[in-house]
Amino acid sequence: MADMEEHSATASDACTGVDRQDCEVRQILDRVADKWSLLVIALLDEQTLRFTELRRKIDGISQRMLTVTLRQLERDGLVERTVYAVVPPRVDYTLTPLGATLHDPIRALVAWTEAHQNEIAAARAAYDAREATEGLPQA
Amino acid sequence: MADMEEHSATASDACTGVDRQDCEVRQILDRVADKWSLLVIALLDEQTLRFTELRRKIDGISQRMLTVTLRQLERDGLVERTVYAVVPPRVDYTLTPLGATLHDPIRALVAWTEAHQNEIAAARAAYDAREATEGLPQA
Repeated sequence: MADMEEHSATASDACTGVDRQDCEVRQILDRVADKWSLLVIALLDEQTLRFTELRRKIDGISQRMLTVTLRQLERDGLVERTVYAVVPPRVDYTLTPLGATLHDPIRALVAWTEAHQNEIAAARAAYDAREATEGLPQA
Repeated sequence: MADMEEHSATASDACTGVDRQDCEVRQILDRVADKWSLLVIALLDEQTLRFTELRRKIDGISQRMLTVTLRQLERDGLVERTVYAVVPPRVDYTLTPLGATLHDPIRALVAWTEAHQNEIAAARAAYDAREATEGLPQA
Protein backbone atom coordinates (compact mmCIF):
# COMPACT_ATOMS: atom_id res chain seq x y z
CA MET A 1 0.00 0.00 0.00
CA ALA A 2 2.72 2.43 0.99
CA ASP A 3 4.67 1.64 -2.17
CA MET A 4 1.58 2.18 -4.27
CA GLU A 5 0.64 5.41 -2.50
CA GLU A 6 4.16 6.77 -2.78
CA HIS A 7 4.45 5.78 -6.40
CA SER A 8 1.08 7.21 -7.34
CA ALA A 9 1.87 10.45 -5.52
CA THR A 10 5.13 10.74 -7.42
CA ALA A 11 3.56 9.82 -10.72
CA SER A 12 0.76 12.38 -10.29
CA ASP A 13 3.34 15.11 -9.85
CA ALA A 14 3.65 15.71 -13.58
CA CYS A 15 1.21 18.46 -14.60
CA THR A 16 1.47 19.66 -18.18
CA GLY A 17 -0.70 21.08 -20.93
CA VAL A 18 -3.92 23.02 -20.85
CA ASP A 19 -5.25 21.27 -17.74
CA ARG A 20 -2.21 22.23 -15.71
CA GLN A 21 -3.98 24.30 -13.06
CA ASP A 22 -6.84 21.80 -12.82
CA CYS A 23 -4.26 19.05 -12.49
CA GLU A 24 -2.44 20.94 -9.72
CA VAL A 25 -5.65 21.44 -7.75
CA ARG A 26 -6.34 17.74 -8.15
CA GLN A 27 -2.85 16.88 -6.96
CA ILE A 28 -3.35 18.91 -3.80
CA LEU A 29 -6.81 17.40 -3.29
CA ASP A 30 -5.14 14.04 -3.70
CA ARG A 31 -2.85 14.95 -0.84
CA VAL A 32 -5.29 16.50 1.62
CA ALA A 33 -8.22 14.32 0.58
CA ASP A 34 -6.47 11.27 1.94
CA LYS A 35 -7.55 9.36 5.01
CA TRP A 36 -4.10 9.21 6.59
CA SER A 37 -3.27 12.84 5.85
CA LEU A 38 -6.58 13.96 7.35
CA LEU A 39 -5.99 11.91 10.49
CA VAL A 40 -2.43 13.21 10.91
CA ILE A 41 -3.52 16.82 10.44
CA ALA A 42 -6.48 16.38 12.80
CA LEU A 43 -4.14 14.99 15.49
CA LEU A 44 -1.45 17.65 15.01
CA ASP A 45 -4.15 20.28 15.12
CA GLU A 46 -4.49 19.45 18.81
CA GLN A 47 -0.82 19.15 19.75
CA THR A 48 2.74 18.62 18.61
CA LEU A 49 3.45 14.90 18.38
CA ARG A 50 6.42 12.62 17.83
CA PHE A 51 6.45 10.00 15.10
CA THR A 52 5.93 7.20 17.61
CA GLU A 53 3.01 9.05 19.20
CA LEU A 54 1.35 9.56 15.82
CA ARG A 55 1.83 5.91 14.94
CA ARG A 56 0.26 4.83 18.23
CA LYS A 57 -2.70 7.18 17.84
CA ILE A 58 -3.43 6.24 14.23
CA ASP A 59 -4.66 2.69 14.55
CA GLY A 60 -3.78 0.63 11.50
CA ILE A 61 -1.19 2.86 9.82
CA SER A 62 2.11 1.21 8.95
CA GLN A 63 5.43 2.82 9.83
CA ARG A 64 6.14 3.20 6.13
CA MET A 65 2.76 4.76 5.31
CA LEU A 66 3.11 7.21 8.21
CA THR A 67 6.62 8.10 7.00
CA VAL A 68 5.35 8.68 3.46
CA THR A 69 2.33 10.65 4.67
CA LEU A 70 4.40 12.92 6.94
CA ARG A 71 6.97 13.50 4.20
CA GLN A 72 4.26 14.51 1.72
CA LEU A 73 2.63 16.82 4.28
CA GLU A 74 6.02 18.37 5.04
CA ARG A 75 6.69 18.82 1.33
CA ASP A 76 3.29 20.50 0.96
CA GLY A 77 4.23 22.94 3.73
CA LEU A 78 1.44 21.68 5.99
CA VAL A 79 3.56 19.95 8.62
CA GLU A 80 6.88 21.02 10.12
CA ARG A 81 9.42 18.45 11.24
CA THR A 82 11.85 19.34 14.04
CA VAL A 83 14.77 17.09 14.92
CA TYR A 84 16.34 17.37 18.38
CA ALA A 85 19.94 16.21 18.66
CA VAL A 86 19.37 14.05 21.72
CA VAL A 87 19.94 10.34 22.29
CA PRO A 88 17.80 8.71 21.07
CA PRO A 89 17.09 11.38 18.42
CA ARG A 90 13.72 13.07 18.95
CA VAL A 91 11.58 14.19 16.02
CA ASP A 92 8.53 16.40 16.59
CA TYR A 93 5.82 17.12 14.07
CA THR A 94 3.70 20.26 14.23
CA LEU A 95 1.22 21.93 11.90
CA THR A 96 2.53 24.94 10.02
CA PRO A 97 0.34 28.07 9.90
CA LEU A 98 -0.78 26.89 6.45
CA GLY A 99 -1.57 23.44 7.82
CA ALA A 100 -3.57 25.02 10.63
CA THR A 101 -5.88 26.64 8.08
CA LEU A 102 -7.08 23.11 7.27
CA HIS A 103 -8.65 22.88 10.72
CA ASP A 104 -12.17 23.92 9.69
CA PRO A 105 -12.55 21.94 6.46
CA ILE A 106 -11.14 18.80 8.06
CA ARG A 107 -13.21 19.10 11.22
CA ALA A 108 -16.30 19.53 9.02
CA LEU A 109 -15.51 16.32 7.14
CA VAL A 110 -14.73 14.33 10.29
CA ALA A 111 -17.86 15.68 12.00
CA TRP A 112 -19.94 14.70 8.97
CA THR A 113 -18.46 11.21 9.09
CA GLU A 114 -19.20 10.80 12.78
CA ALA A 115 -22.71 12.20 12.38
CA HIS A 116 -23.67 9.92 9.48
CA GLN A 117 -21.82 6.70 10.17
CA ASN A 118 -24.99 4.86 11.17
CA GLU A 119 -26.85 5.89 8.02
CA ILE A 120 -23.88 4.74 5.94
CA ALA A 121 -23.62 1.44 7.79
CA ALA A 122 -27.33 0.86 7.13
CA ALA A 123 -26.93 1.76 3.45
CA ARG A 124 -24.03 -0.67 3.12
CA ALA A 125 -26.01 -3.46 4.74
CA ALA A 126 -28.97 -2.83 2.40
CA TYR A 127 -26.69 -2.68 -0.65
CA ASP A 128 -24.93 -5.91 0.29
CA ALA A 129 -28.30 -7.61 0.80
CA ARG A 130 -29.50 -6.46 -2.64
CA GLU A 131 -26.22 -7.48 -4.22
CA ALA A 132 -26.51 -10.94 -2.69
CA THR A 133 -29.87 -11.43 -4.37
CA GLU A 134 -29.43 -9.45 -7.61
CA GLY A 135 -25.71 -9.67 -8.27
CA LEU A 136 -23.35 -6.79 -9.03
CA PRO A 137 -24.72 -3.81 -10.96
CA GLN A 138 -23.18 -2.87 -14.29
CA ALA A 139 -21.39 0.47 -14.60
CA MET B 1 -4.53 1.47 -9.00
CA ALA B 2 -8.17 0.46 -9.31
CA ASP B 3 -7.37 -3.07 -8.21
CA MET B 4 -5.46 -1.78 -5.23
CA GLU B 5 -8.16 0.68 -4.27
CA GLU B 6 -10.87 -1.90 -4.58
CA HIS B 7 -8.89 -4.45 -2.65
CA SER B 8 -7.96 -2.04 0.12
CA ALA B 9 -11.58 -0.89 0.42
CA THR B 10 -12.70 -4.48 0.72
CA ALA B 11 -9.98 -5.40 3.15
CA SER B 12 -10.76 -2.39 5.37
CA ASP B 13 -14.34 -3.55 5.67
CA ALA B 14 -13.56 -5.86 8.59
CA CYS B 15 -14.08 -3.94 11.84
CA THR B 16 -13.81 -5.99 15.01
CA GLY B 17 -12.78 -5.59 18.61
CA VAL B 18 -12.71 -2.62 20.93
CA ASP B 19 -11.85 -0.12 18.18
CA ARG B 20 -14.88 -1.09 16.15
CA GLN B 21 -16.58 2.31 16.11
CA ASP B 22 -13.28 4.11 15.55
CA CYS B 23 -12.58 1.69 12.74
CA GLU B 24 -15.98 2.32 11.17
CA VAL B 25 -15.48 6.09 11.25
CA ARG B 26 -12.11 5.55 9.63
CA GLN B 27 -13.66 3.34 6.95
CA ILE B 28 -16.15 6.04 6.08
CA LEU B 29 -13.43 8.71 6.10
CA ASP B 30 -11.50 6.41 3.81
CA ARG B 31 -14.43 6.51 1.43
CA VAL B 32 -15.31 10.20 1.49
CA ALA B 33 -11.74 11.38 2.04
CA ASP B 34 -10.76 10.12 -1.36
CA LYS B 35 -9.89 12.35 -4.29
CA TRP B 36 -12.09 10.56 -6.82
CA SER B 37 -15.06 10.29 -4.46
CA LEU B 38 -14.83 13.99 -3.65
CA LEU B 39 -14.70 14.91 -7.33
CA VAL B 40 -17.67 12.68 -8.20
CA ILE B 41 -19.74 14.07 -5.33
CA ALA B 42 -18.79 17.65 -6.19
CA LEU B 43 -19.88 17.10 -9.80
CA LEU B 44 -23.14 15.32 -8.91
CA ASP B 45 -23.86 18.08 -6.44
CA GLU B 46 -24.42 20.32 -9.46
CA GLN B 47 -26.40 17.96 -11.67
CA THR B 48 -27.34 14.40 -12.51
CA LEU B 49 -24.73 12.88 -14.78
CA ARG B 50 -24.24 9.72 -16.81
CA PHE B 51 -21.22 7.50 -16.42
CA THR B 52 -19.71 8.76 -19.66
CA GLU B 53 -20.26 12.39 -18.63
CA LEU B 54 -18.57 11.80 -15.27
CA ARG B 55 -15.65 10.09 -16.96
CA ARG B 56 -15.23 12.99 -19.38
CA LYS B 57 -15.42 15.62 -16.61
CA ILE B 58 -12.96 13.85 -14.29
CA ASP B 59 -9.72 14.20 -16.14
CA GLY B 60 -7.42 11.26 -15.51
CA ILE B 61 -9.83 8.77 -13.95
CA SER B 62 -9.89 5.31 -15.52
CA GLN B 63 -13.15 3.60 -16.45
CA ARG B 64 -12.42 0.96 -13.83
CA MET B 65 -11.63 3.46 -11.07
CA LEU B 66 -14.79 5.44 -11.85
CA THR B 67 -16.80 2.21 -11.76
CA VAL B 68 -15.30 1.24 -8.40
CA THR B 69 -15.76 4.74 -6.98
CA LEU B 70 -19.41 4.97 -8.06
CA ARG B 71 -20.14 1.50 -6.71
CA GLN B 72 -18.65 2.37 -3.33
CA LEU B 73 -20.56 5.67 -3.21
CA GLU B 74 -23.76 3.82 -4.11
CA ARG B 75 -23.09 1.22 -1.42
CA ASP B 76 -22.53 4.02 1.11
CA GLY B 77 -25.93 5.47 0.20
CA LEU B 78 -24.37 8.69 -1.14
CA VAL B 79 -25.09 8.18 -4.83
CA GLU B 80 -28.15 6.73 -6.53
CA ARG B 81 -27.87 4.85 -9.80
CA THR B 82 -30.82 4.80 -12.19
CA VAL B 83 -30.87 2.55 -15.24
CA TYR B 84 -33.16 3.43 -18.14
CA ALA B 85 -34.21 0.55 -20.38
CA VAL B 86 -33.35 2.29 -23.64
CA VAL B 87 -30.98 1.34 -26.42
CA PRO B 88 -28.18 1.90 -25.71
CA PRO B 89 -28.90 1.51 -21.97
CA ARG B 90 -28.70 4.81 -20.12
CA VAL B 91 -27.41 5.01 -16.54
CA ASP B 92 -27.81 8.20 -14.51
CA TYR B 93 -26.05 9.00 -11.26
CA THR B 94 -27.47 11.45 -8.74
CA LEU B 95 -26.66 12.38 -5.16
CA THR B 96 -28.96 10.94 -2.52
CA PRO B 97 -30.25 13.29 0.23
CA LEU B 98 -27.48 11.85 2.42
CA GLY B 99 -24.91 12.50 -0.29
CA ALA B 100 -26.18 16.07 -0.64
CA THR B 101 -25.31 16.73 3.01
CA LEU B 102 -21.66 16.41 1.97
CA HIS B 103 -21.97 19.62 -0.05
CA ASP B 104 -20.62 21.97 2.60
CA PRO B 105 -17.68 19.91 3.90
CA ILE B 106 -16.54 19.05 0.38
CA ARG B 107 -16.89 22.59 -0.94
CA ALA B 108 -14.86 23.78 2.04
CA LEU B 109 -12.06 21.36 1.22
CA VAL B 110 -12.08 22.17 -2.50
CA ALA B 111 -12.18 25.90 -1.75
CA TRP B 112 -9.24 25.52 0.62
CA THR B 113 -7.32 23.65 -2.07
CA GLU B 114 -8.01 26.29 -4.70
CA ALA B 115 -7.16 29.11 -2.28
CA HIS B 116 -3.83 27.65 -1.16
CA GLN B 117 -2.51 25.88 -4.25
CA ASN B 118 0.15 28.52 -4.88
CA GLU B 119 1.46 28.32 -1.29
CA ILE B 120 1.63 24.56 -1.60
CA ALA B 121 3.37 24.70 -4.96
CA ALA B 122 5.94 27.07 -3.43
CA ALA B 123 6.41 24.79 -0.41
CA ARG B 124 6.97 21.80 -2.68
CA ALA B 125 9.53 23.66 -4.74
CA ALA B 126 11.39 24.74 -1.59
CA TYR B 127 11.27 21.20 -0.16
CA ASP B 128 12.55 19.67 -3.38
CA ALA B 129 15.38 22.19 -3.50
CA ARG B 130 16.38 21.36 0.11
CA GLU B 131 16.09 17.66 -0.59
CA ALA B 132 18.36 17.99 -3.61
CA THR B 133 21.07 19.51 -1.44
CA GLU B 134 20.51 17.70 1.88
CA GLY B 135 19.03 14.36 0.78
CA LEU B 136 15.89 12.74 2.12
CA PRO B 137 14.98 13.33 5.78
CA GLN B 138 14.73 10.39 8.14
CA ALA B 139 11.36 9.54 9.67
